[in-house]
Amino acid sequence: MSLVVHKYGGSSVADADMIKSVARRITDARKKGTGVVAVVSAMGDSTDDLIDLARSVSSQPHPREMDLLLSTGELVACTLLTMALEDLGQEAVSLTGSQAGIHTDTSHGQARIDRVDTARMLQELGEGRIVVVAGFQGITEDEDITTLGRGGSDTTAVALAATLQADRCEIYTDVDGIYTADPRIVPEARKLDEISYDEMLELANYGAKMHPRSIELGAVFNVPIYVASSFNQTPGTLIHGNADKVEMENRIKATGIACTKNVAKITVRSVPDRPGVAAALFEPLAQSGISVDTIVQNTSEDRTTDISFTVSGDDLSAAMAKVEELVKEIGSGALISEVGLAAVSVVGSGMQHTPGYASRMFRVLADGKVNIDMITTSEIRISCIIREEQAEEAVRLLHRGFALDEPDPADGN
Amino acid sequence: MSLVVHKYGGSSVADADMIKSVARRITDARKKGTGVVAVVSAMGDSTDDLIDLARSVSSQPHPREMDLLLSTGELVACTLLTMALEDLGQEAVSLTGSQAGIHTDTSHGQARIDRVDTARMLQELGEGRIVVVAGFQGITEDEDITTLGRGGSDTTAVALAATLQADRCEIYTDVDGIYTADPRIVPEARKLDEISYDEMLELANYGAKMHPRSIELGAVFNVPIYVASSFNQTPGTLIHGNADKVEMENRIKATGIACTKNVAKITVRSVPDRPGVAAALFEPLAQSGISVDTIVQNTSEDRTTDISFTVSGDDLSAAMAKVEELVKEIGSGALISEVGLAAVSVVGSGMQHTPGYASRMFRVLADGKVNIDMITTSEIRISCIIREEQAEEAVRLLHRGFALDEPDPADGN
Repeated sequence: MSLVVHKYGGSSVADADMIKSVARRITDARKKGTGVVAVVSAMGDSTDDLIDLARSVSSQPHPREMDLLLSTGELVACTLLTMALEDLGQEAVSLTGSQAGIHTDTSHGQARIDRVDTARMLQELGEGRIVVVAGFQGITEDEDITTLGRGGSDTTAVALAATLQADRCEIYTDVDGIYTADPRIVPEARKLDEISYDEMLELANYGAKMHPRSIELGAVFNVPIYVASSFNQTPGTLIHGNADKVEMENRIKATGIACTKNVAKITVRSVPDRPGVAAALFEPLAQSGISVDTIVQNTSEDRTTDISFTVSGDDLSAAMAKVEELVKEIGSGALISEVGLAAVSVVGSGMQHTPGYASRMFRVLADGKVNIDMITTSEIRISCIIREEQAEEAVRLLHRGFALDEPDPADGN
Repeated sequence: MSLVVHKYGGSSVADADMIKSVARRITDARKKGTGVVAVVSAMGDSTDDLIDLARSVSSQPHPREMDLLLSTGELVACTLLTMALEDLGQEAVSLTGSQAGIHTDTSHGQARIDRVDTARMLQELGEGRIVVVAGFQGITEDEDITTLGRGGSDTTAVALAATLQADRCEIYTDVDGIYTADPRIVPEARKLDEISYDEMLELANYGAKMHPRSIELGAVFNVPIYVASSFNQTPGTLIHGNADKVEMENRIKATGIACTKNVAKITVRSVPDRPGVAAALFEPLAQSGISVDTIVQNTSEDRTTDISFTVSGDDLSAAMAKVEELVKEIGSGALISEVGLAAVSVVGSGMQHTPGYASRMFRVLADGKVNIDMITTSEIRISCIIREEQAEEAVRLLHRGFALDEPDPADGN
C-alpha cells in the first residue's frame, strides 16, 4: 500500500474548526486507499503560552523540565486530531514521540533523532488505522522526553517518511508553497512548482518558513517533500532531488531571494594569527547551542587578524558573554558588537558556474544605495549583510534585478 | 533517611503564585532532611478545559485518546512545580506516570494500578533530588497512557507512599482536614484530629472530598494519610489504622455525617425470584463502569420481588438503557426511575456494637419531618436516601442529634 506522511503546523490546528478541517483533509487522502501518518504541531500559540507559564515560575527553567512541559502542546493537538478523525468514522490512533519510537540524543531543547523504531506505527498502519504522531518530540535512552527545537515537527515528519519509506512527505502550512521571495515583501513574487533540496536548504536557512534540518534529512534519504497550504487546494511546491538535473541546464537565473532579519554582528579585533584560534573562538559557542552564521576573517600582515561573525539578535548577549571570556584567554584586542542588521541572499543552483551573479547582486544593491557590510557565498548562494531597515527594499530590488518576477521558461507557466 | 509523599490538588496549584508557594512548602520539608516525593494534579480547572476541547472536536471522544489528552494537565503542573523548586535552589526532577513506573491495567478513564516500579524514583531520591510525579496517570504494558479516574492523584500518592515505604502520605488540599460534617452546611462542624481508615472510607464514599480508592489502598498497606490545607499551617487530620483501637472503646458517638447529592433511584418491579437474577441485573452495569450504590431487595410471597438501587444522577440514562435490555430478557415488570434524591449517612466505628444508633437516626429525621425512602447499613455506617432538597437540613439535624458539635473527650480538645 502506498503511504504518505502529512504534517500540519500550529497555525493549521489553531482551533476546533481547523482541527476538524484537517481531519477531513486526512480522511480524503485515506479514502484514496493511501496509508496516512499525520504529524502535528501544538495548537496556535500554545507553545508560547507554555513558555510564558514556565517563565512565571522560574527565572531560568531547566531544559529537561522545559522539554517535558513543551511536549504536552503537541500531545493535546495530536489527541484532538485523532478524536476528530474518529468522529468522521475513521480508525485512528495518537502516538506520543516515545510511542512512535522516536529516539533522540540527550540535547534537551535541540535534540537530534538517533533512530526511529517503526514497530508500533507499522502495527497500527497494518491494522488500517491512521497514525497521528505528536511532532517535535522524542525520548532518550533513559526515557526522558526531549524536543527537537522550534519547527522540529517538520523534522519529525521527514524522519518518519524516511524510515517508513513513505511515498512522500506533505507539509501543510499557512503558505501556498515556496516563493521566489516573501510575498509580503515582494507582491510580484512567484510560487515555484519545484525546487531542489540544496536550493531549499539555502532558502530555509535564510528566511523561508521551513526547518532546515528537515530539508537536510529529506536530501539524505531522498524523501520528496511537498509544501502546500492547509487552508485551500492550491497546488504547492515539490522539494526533491531531481529538480537539479531538470533545471540546472535550463536555468540562467536565480531561484529565489531570502532574507533574515534580527541579525547581530560581533567583531574581535587583533586576534593572534595562529592555528587553533578560530576553533577556540567558535567551539564554546557551538557547545552553548548558539548558532553562528556568516563568518569573515581577513588575513593581515602584522600577525593579527580581525574576525567578524553574525548570530541571531536573540543570542547576542549569550554569545558576547562567551566571547568575552575567550578574548581574555587568547589576548585579542577590542570586542565590538552591532545589532539591527539583516542578511539578504540570492539562491540558485548552478550559480557558481555562471559568472556575473555576484557582481550583478552588488550592482543592484549599490544602485539602490544599500551599503554592504559583509559578504559570504556558498555553491548556490550569495549573501550580503546589510542594515535591517534596508532589508525589504533590498529584497524587492534583487527580485527585480534577477528577473524573478518574469515567468520561468523551465516551469512552463 | 525518612521519606514523605506530598500530594497537591488542582486548587493548590491553580496559578504561578500558588505553585511557588507549594514549592516553598516542599522546600521547608526537604530542609528538615526528609526525602520528598510530591504528586500533583492538573492546575485549577485545566482538566475541565481539556474535556471541553475534546467535546469541541468529537461527540464521543475515544477513552484511549481522552486519557492521553487529560494526562497532559498533570504533566504541565508537575514540570512547573519542578522548575519552581529549582528556582529555590533545590535539586528536583519531574517524572511522568510512566517514568515513575506506575503500571496499570487497560481500563482507560478508570485504570487500576497493577504495580509500581520504583527504580527511577529511588535513583533520583538517592541522588538527593526532590521527585515530582504527575498524578492521576499510568502506563499499560503496551505503553499506552491511562488515567485513574477523577481524583486519581490521591491514589497515585498513596500508592507511591506504600511502595516507597514512606513514613506517611500528606494530602494538601483546599480544606483544613476531615470534619464531622461539611462546614459549608453545618457551621458548627468540628475538625477531627484523627480518624480510622474504615470511617474515612465511609465518609469519602458518602461525600467527603477524598478519593475512596486512596483510603482503601492506605488501609491495605497501612500508610498513615495526613490531610491538611495547602493554604495555611493549621493542623489537619491523620487517617490511620490505630484510630480504631484508641477510640473504639472511648467513643459513644458517631464520627461524622456524610452527604451525597444528585442521587437517582431505579426500581425494577416484579423481578422473578430465582437465583442469578441479581447478578444478571448488576453485572452489565459494572461492566459499563456504572457505580451502583445502595441496593435494596425485599423478598416477597408471590415468587417475584422488587429491586431498587441508586446510581449517580449523571449515570441515570446510561444505567436505564442497560436495565431496559435486561428487563426484556428476564421478563420483569415495570421499570421506574426517580431523580432528585440524596444519601445522608451517620459514620462511626463501633456503631454496630452500640445499640440505638439506627433508631436515633430515624427519630432525628422523623422529628425534622424528613421522609426516608431507603435505608442501608454497613458495620460503621447507616445511610438513608431522602429528598435532595431536605439533604442539608438533614445533615444539620443529624450533626446536632448525634452531639457532634460537642468536643470529643477522646480528642482532648
